[in-house]
Amino acid sequence: MKLRPLQDRILVQRVEEESKTKGGIIIPDTAKEKPAEGRVVAVGNGKVGDDGNRIPLELKEGDRVLFGKYSGTEVKVEGEEYLIMREDDILGIID
Amino acid sequence: MKLRPLQDRILVQRVEEESKTKGGIIIPDTAKEKPAEGRVVAVGNGKVGDDGNRIPLELKEGDRVLFGKYSGTEVKVEGEEYLIMREDDILGIID
Amino acid sequence: MKLRPLQDRILVQRVEEESKTKGGIIIPDTAKEKPAEGRVVAVGNGKVGDDGNRIPLELKEGDRVLFGKYSGTEVKVEGEEYLIMREDDILGIID
Amino acid sequence: MKLRPLQDRILVQRVEEESKTKGGIIIPDTAKEKPAEGRVVAVGNGKVGDDGNRIPLELKEGDRVLFGKYSGTEVKVEGEEYLIMREDDILGIID
Amino acid sequence: MKLRPLQDRILVQRVEEESKTKGGIIIPDTAKEKPAEGRVVAVGNGKVGDDGNRIPLELKEGDRVLFGKYSGTEVKVEGEEYLIMREDDILGIID
Amino acid sequence: MKLRPLQDRILVQRVEEESKTKGGIIIPDTAKEKPAEGRVVAVGNGKVGDDGNRIPLELKEGDRVLFGKYSGTEVKVEGEEYLIMREDDILGIID
Amino acid sequence: MKLRPLQDRILVQRVEEESKTKGGIIIPDTAKEKPAEGRVVAVGNGKVGDDGNRIPLELKEGDRVLFGKYSGTEVKVEGEEYLIMREDDILGIID
Repeated sequence: MKLRPLQDRILVQRVEEESKTKGGIIIPDTAKEKPAEGRVVAVGNGKVGDDGNRIPLELKEGDRVLFGKYSGTEVKVEGEEYLIMREDDILGIID
Repeated sequence: MKLRPLQDRILVQRVEEESKTKGGIIIPDTAKEKPAEGRVVAVGNGKVGDDGNRIPLELKEGDRVLFGKYSGTEVKVEGEEYLIMREDDILGIID
Repeated sequence: MKLRPLQDRILVQRVEEESKTKGGIIIPDTAKEKPAEGRVVAVGNGKVGDDGNRIPLELKEGDRVLFGKYSGTEVKVEGEEYLIMREDDILGIID
Repeated sequence: MKLRPLQDRILVQRVEEESKTKGGIIIPDTAKEKPAEGRVVAVGNGKVGDDGNRIPLELKEGDRVLFGKYSGTEVKVEGEEYLIMREDDILGIID
Repeated sequence: MKLRPLQDRILVQRVEEESKTKGGIIIPDTAKEKPAEGRVVAVGNGKVGDDGNRIPLELKEGDRVLFGKYSGTEVKVEGEEYLIMREDDILGIID
Repeated sequence: MKLRPLQDRILVQRVEEESKTKGGIIIPDTAKEKPAEGRVVAVGNGKVGDDGNRIPLELKEGDRVLFGKYSGTEVKVEGEEYLIMREDDILGIID
Repeated sequence: MKLRPLQDRILVQRVEEESKTKGGIIIPDTAKEKPAEGRVVAVGNGKVGDDGNRIPLELKEGDRVLFGKYSGTEVKVEGEEYLIMREDDILGIID
């Protein structure tokens, strides 16, 4: 089973960040929300503009991306957790 | 009787998910809303853009789709329950 | 007297649904709002787009339609009750 | 003195509806708001679209129209009460 | 000193309405807000549309206009009180 | 050091108004907000429209302008206080 | 590791302002929010307009900029703190 996002949506697999120090102490989240990291698993075909042309996404499969911690909708595909969000929710690409 | 959705709307038949374990124990919904699954039964002709051209839908009859649990309006056509929603409410296509 | 809707509006005559069982028991409305059914009696000429062209309606006189239970404004024309609403309030056409 | 509405506005003279029965009993308004009736006295030249062209109104002087009971702004011109509203506030034309 | 309004703004001098009867009794404002009257003293060059062209105003210096009682911002130019508002705040021109 | 505003923003230096009478009595602000006066120190290159063309500003360096008392963001450049605001916040030019 | 902002976003490194006097006294923030200063570290490729063309940013790497104190989202790249924000959040360029 594969999930193909519609229009300007992308499918992202969250990359779990290490929230423990090497000595095993849990680091509490600071008050300020930090963005989360993920890998783009699939991208939509892009939105159709007012002139009828489809605007392709800037992101492509495999991109490592940063996004707001609470962005997107959780989806489970074949037992794996993913996030579906709009490209506009992505803050940047990690090269 | 058939129901033809207008413009960028689609008619979706919900695919009931198994909410019981094999042993028969009911699995409670988690706090986080999970998307629902359905099959596209009919699609509209698409919206008319500002330039007067109709923008056809990306979805077609038969597509299996994911959508937000509370998306759409319930309709009963010849005793069967369907949902009418806009294409934009669809998160992705399951291949 | 006739009523001609303006722009993207339509005039709809509600089709009363049978809310009693054959045995005469009144069926209470469920919590979830169900759409109502009607017949299109008149349609407007369509809205004028940004390029100055009128976008004709997809609906035409005689269409049987579904719409949200609380959509539109009630109008009385020669003693008959109608609803005026925008085409966008129509969920679908019943063929 | 004459009042010329600007852009997509129209000047409407309300047609008072008979709110008494023939026997003189006052009929109370029902809970549901009914639209009011009026006659178009003057129309604006239309709004200027994004392409710089003026979009003429669909209504013309003399049209009998229906509008939401609370639409428009009251104006008094030479002792007579009128309403100024946008064409979009008009629900339909009575032929 | 002169004040030139920017874009789609106009400079209006309020025409005080007689709020006393001939016999000198003050007429209280009714609950319903009535529009105020003024004279256009200066007009802007118009807004620039999406296509880069300036859309000239429909109003011109000297027009007598009606506007909502609380429209605009008060300005004092050489001891005289004026109002600066957008053309869209003007309801109509008094001929 | 110089500050160059971006897009449709302008840099304005407030002209302090005399808030004392000649006899030295402080005049309290009236309830109604009066606009403030300033001089345009720098202007941006203008916004880019939907067609990709930059729309130049109507204002230029040196213009004396009126703006809403609470418009803009305060900036300190080399010890001097300025305001950065959008051209649309300017009510008019004083000639 | 490098972070490439998407579309009309930029990556900014905050320039800490001296908040002590030479004698070491801490200067409290005034009630009025002052903008913060930063250096542009990376810029996106620009947004795609309605006509399908990408609108390049006005800012470029290396620009010293002013922005609202609470603008942007904090990101940590290789131990360094950055801010990701939209170009529109930038008030001006310091030359």
